[in-house]
Amino acid sequence: MEKRFKGVFAPLTTPFINGQIAADKLRDNIEKFNRTGLAGYIIMGSTGEAPFVDDEEAELLVREATRAASPEKIVIAGTGRDSAEWTIKLTNRLAEAGAQAALIKPPYYYKSRMNYEALKAYYSEVADRVKIPVIMYNIPQNTQIWLPLELVIELAKHQNIIGLKESGGSLAYLSEVVSKVSADFHYFTGSASILYSALDMGACGAILALANVAPELCVKLYELFAAGKKEEAKELQYKLIPLNRALTETYGIAAVKYALDRRGYYGGPGRSPLLPLESKAQIEINNYLTELNLLK
Amino acid sequence: MEKRFKGVFAPLTTPFINGQIAADKLRDNIEKFNRTGLAGYIIMGSTGEAPFVDDEEAELLVREATRAASPEKIVIAGTGRDSAEWTIKLTNRLAEAGAQAALIKPPYYYKSRMNYEALKAYYSEVADRVKIPVIMYNIPQNTQIWLPLELVIELAKHQNIIGLKESGGSLAYLSEVVSKVSADFHYFTGSASILYSALDMGACGAILALANVAPELCVKLYELFAAGKKEEAKELQYKLIPLNRALTETYGIAAVKYALDRRGYYGGPGRSPLLPLESKAQIEINNYLTELNLLK
Amino acid sequence: MEKRFKGVFAPLTTPFINGQIAADKLRDNIEKFNRTGLAGYIIMGSTGEAPFVDDEEAELLVREATRAASPEKIVIAGTGRDSAEWTIKLTNRLAEAGAQAALIKPPYYYKSRMNYEALKAYYSEVADRVKIPVIMYNIPQNTQIWLPLELVIELAKHQNIIGLKESGGSLAYLSEVVSKVSADFHYFTGSASILYSALDMGACGAILALANVAPELCVKLYELFAAGKKEEAKELQYKLIPLNRALTETYGIAAVKYALDRRGYYGGPGRSPLLPLESKAQIEINNYLTELNLLK
Amino acid sequence: MEKRFKGVFAPLTTPFINGQIAADKLRDNIEKFNRTGLAGYIIMGSTGEAPFVDDEEAELLVREATRAASPEKIVIAGTGRDSAEWTIKLTNRLAEAGAQAALIKPPYYYKSRMNYEALKAYYSEVADRVKIPVIMYNIPQNTQIWLPLELVIELAKHQNIIGLKESGGSLAYLSEVVSKVSADFHYFTGSASILYSALDMGACGAILALANVAPELCVKLYELFAAGKKEEAKELQYKLIPLNRALTETYGIAAVKYALDRRGYYGGPGRSPLLPLESKAQIEINNYLTELNLLK
Repeated sequence: MEKRFKGVFAPLTTPFINGQIAADKLRDNIEKFNRTGLAGYIIMGSTGEAPFVDDEEAELLVREATRAASPEKIVIAGTGRDSAEWTIKLTNRLAEAGAQAALIKPPYYYKSRMNYEALKAYYSEVADRVKIPVIMYNIPQNTQIWLPLELVIELAKHQNIIGLKESGGSLAYLSEVVSKVSADFHYFTGSASILYSALDMGACGAILALANVAPELCVKLYELFAAGKKEEAKELQYKLIPLNRALTETYGIAAVKYALDRRGYYGGPGRSPLLPLESKAQIEINNYLTELNLLK
Repeated sequence: MEKRFKGVFAPLTTPFINGQIAADKLRDNIEKFNRTGLAGYIIMGSTGEAPFVDDEEAELLVREATRAASPEKIVIAGTGRDSAEWTIKLTNRLAEAGAQAALIKPPYYYKSRMNYEALKAYYSEVADRVKIPVIMYNIPQNTQIWLPLELVIELAKHQNIIGLKESGGSLAYLSEVVSKVSADFHYFTGSASILYSALDMGACGAILALANVAPELCVKLYELFAAGKKEEAKELQYKLIPLNRALTETYGIAAVKYALDRRGYYGGPGRSPLLPLESKAQIEINNYLTELNLLK
Repeated sequence: MEKRFKGVFAPLTTPFINGQIAADKLRDNIEKFNRTGLAGYIIMGSTGEAPFVDDEEAELLVREATRAASPEKIVIAGTGRDSAEWTIKLTNRLAEAGAQAALIKPPYYYKSRMNYEALKAYYSEVADRVKIPVIMYNIPQNTQIWLPLELVIELAKHQNIIGLKESGGSLAYLSEVVSKVSADFHYFTGSASILYSALDMGACGAILALANVAPELCVKLYELFAAGKKEEAKELQYKLIPLNRALTETYGIAAVKYALDRRGYYGGPGRSPLLPLESKAQIEINNYLTELNLLK
Repeated sequence: MEKRFKGVFAPLTTPFINGQIAADKLRDNIEKFNRTGLAGYIIMGSTGEAPFVDDEEAELLVREATRAASPEKIVIAGTGRDSAEWTIKLTNRLAEAGAQAALIKPPYYYKSRMNYEALKAYYSEVADRVKIPVIMYNIPQNTQIWLPLELVIELAKHQNIIGLKESGGSLAYLSEVVSKVSADFHYFTGSASILYSALDMGACGAILALANVAPELCVKLYELFAAGKKEEAKELQYKLIPLNRALTETYGIAAVKYALDRRGYYGGPGRSPLLPLESKAQIEINNYLTELNLLK
């Protein structure tokens, strides 16, 4: 069975001006991204400051993104709130607004209760009651929860759960999951630093913060791999790691937004409590962008 | 300067029927609690499944609670969302609905960015822009963030930040904070298991999950202490710990709700992803309630 | 039944010169400590850099300490290595050298295996096979292991396990343990910042890094409490917290050793990988010592 | 410059009978392993219960292993104790006993002090003063310390630090390290579940608990890769993961020893506090061994 989605997706940043959503900036960015080889966009991902954005704002973002995206680009929405009830409500609202699939992280506030059975019940109920396909989302650095491998394999059988985004960066986990789920399950890596090997071991695609800043290079790596040019893909892989680590581990969203500004997209400030990028970090990001020939 | 609030507060559970808020059950519970010596109620606290409840539902809860509470009972709302913008919006909405103060936990999704400066900027902005006084909320077991002691002391100078609820259970932290803030700062312990010593070292009150299930005993301990009957207060303290540990550490909200049902209040189910209390745990809770003479 | 040990103990630092043990400096320090009201000394505790010291060196330390200690001072040795076999061997060797009891932390390298049953088997076997009484040691900040409360209560029944040192600083845990063990069980707090309340809730004594630096003040607090002068004890408690936090949380052993030097004891350097105290921290420690009138 | 070591190494288990080292069983095992394609043996690794074994026993183990190993097999010793002084002493003792290189984990008891500078000073001093080459060892699951990438790159310049064993399983870290160190630096992965990709990205070899239990398959994967048969190597990779995860994550050393017994080597019991493998886990391990045709 054919996978519906593949390739490199960008989890878009959410543009703010004076703390409010700047929908025009989102459209502008998307129009530029439409000219790249990106497979689509995630709205309300972790890079999109999803927990900072309320439901009404989320609807606005998805509506605008859906309009701005060219027809071949997939629009996926992050819809995970902390309860099944709220997640279902938001998912269906964003489906109405145009989202083609929902990326759903586990509830994590009461993490001492989030055992296998609780997570299974949660994802099952959500998947049963939402109108669009569900992609599970493992992001332990933010949630302190690792979706158990056996749980992912079990939930992969649910007809409305079509995949997983894994941002913990574990290639062992990837390899075991892909070898145990059916061929139409979508495994997206969330780690640009292991993209080459993730594809090699069976990921169908990737959802990468780096794809905001360097969409052409992420797509190039994907295409080199798909064309069987593994050594070239690997060479590019090494080059992407330092920038990716700075963006995702060392500095976070403020660095992604700064780099977007430098590259001619709109980055702008994050919402409080995120602070602007300090000047020392700006210099470091600039150096990485320069090394990759990403600045004109 | 006199403290505005003191005594024992209950962070009320949120009643659900079929996954939806049962406002009548909330009113019934509050009418019963009105007859106890509780100083007031927290709506949308951690025990209230706050992250599971959206803003519209939160408004309903606060509105109903404000109406049902007898005039001398204080109503405080948990209003912390993940961004300053959202928290401010929700706080002011719940202030309109009747909340007299706001209990605000730190944003915690991007916890690697939540350094001293980010938390300081967050709480300062929120406190500047909301219409009711702010009580900071330290609950590291859920957020993985400890509000730095120096930060609490610094923010205590903000004229709209009136206190702290501390649920990490650290008596050392309590002792150092109360010795360094002005006399009108409200330090509430969130740990019923250290209530006696917390009062002894300078807490003005407590916000206790246990106060849902055993309000009369929590109030009694407080009153014994206030009356200088320290040995009696201490004896009661020892007796409360096993039930409190079961409710807050071992089993969580499902156990609080089960115990409420057993005591003649409405407990009911939690929202998914919280699972119902297993029968073995029910027996344990029953035993503790019996030992404390809390069942008729 | 009477407790064998009570009062304030100092976990002595281990003096080094050029990376080697300076036995004369240990003797000098102990001779000075003999003139204080300390109940005794721990050799090879966490403050004593126990994991840095091999078995032969440990024997030397205990032998020297036993000789230098005045007759009424108790000498306890930290003897926990990572396996039962090794811990038993070292315990009996240090018993021969003069140690009157053994303070034993849980093995912690394979911490994912250190469940209830493994820890129970470990402590039981050790207690069965050593010639001196065993004091369990909870120090989660270093071991990442909390000894389960039920385990401590169960092991307290072993005739050769006479107590617990608890350095996690939990007053709730203390209160529940002391209410459930027999009267001859020794509960020592390891947290000078909660000493007053720990005594109030039932600790029989304390083992305090701070007692190296400020033995007279730690002993004074203990004696004020024992004499029923609770308000005076409490006032002293508040004053000790900032220095204690700096010594134990913020800076560690290097700060304890620096403060010892300032006070006329021998502190000296720690062993590598511990680094010397930076000058900014030295100033902070000096200020705390001055505020407490501990410098001449 | 040519690397000195490459290929697959087994970190041997330490055989015990009645809690004492069974040197003859170690020799028997090594004689069997000599007939495989393993590149060599690690004595006193994490799989070898190193923290359970004292220095005298360690010397015995290395001496016996060196004698039993056939001439082409490399013998490396785990020599990391908690201080530089002790580690140096043990390293030189084990070098005398025949160890050709030392595998050294970071000190981890005082982990809040183990910052960049402390770790740098530690490894530098150790490497300066020991007589055999040093291989750093990253094993955060046991030490809670990640050796910072920049530190590894900096220490890689020390003439007596020749490599790193990385057991955290991060392919991103591997890729960035190998791209930034000189060609003669040895990067060993400690994760059999990512062996194929680790080799692909630049590891020169591996040190694998699984290589005790399935040396022929680990070596086969390595050789397939070296021969350019990447697809076959990858197929084998997928097959090894479930057994490896059971041995290293789910069950640990008790499972490795059980599997050794099943395969005709000597496994035997671990030292206390390690418990024997429960029967349910035995069945699971047996199934994995059967699936891989490792039982006769």
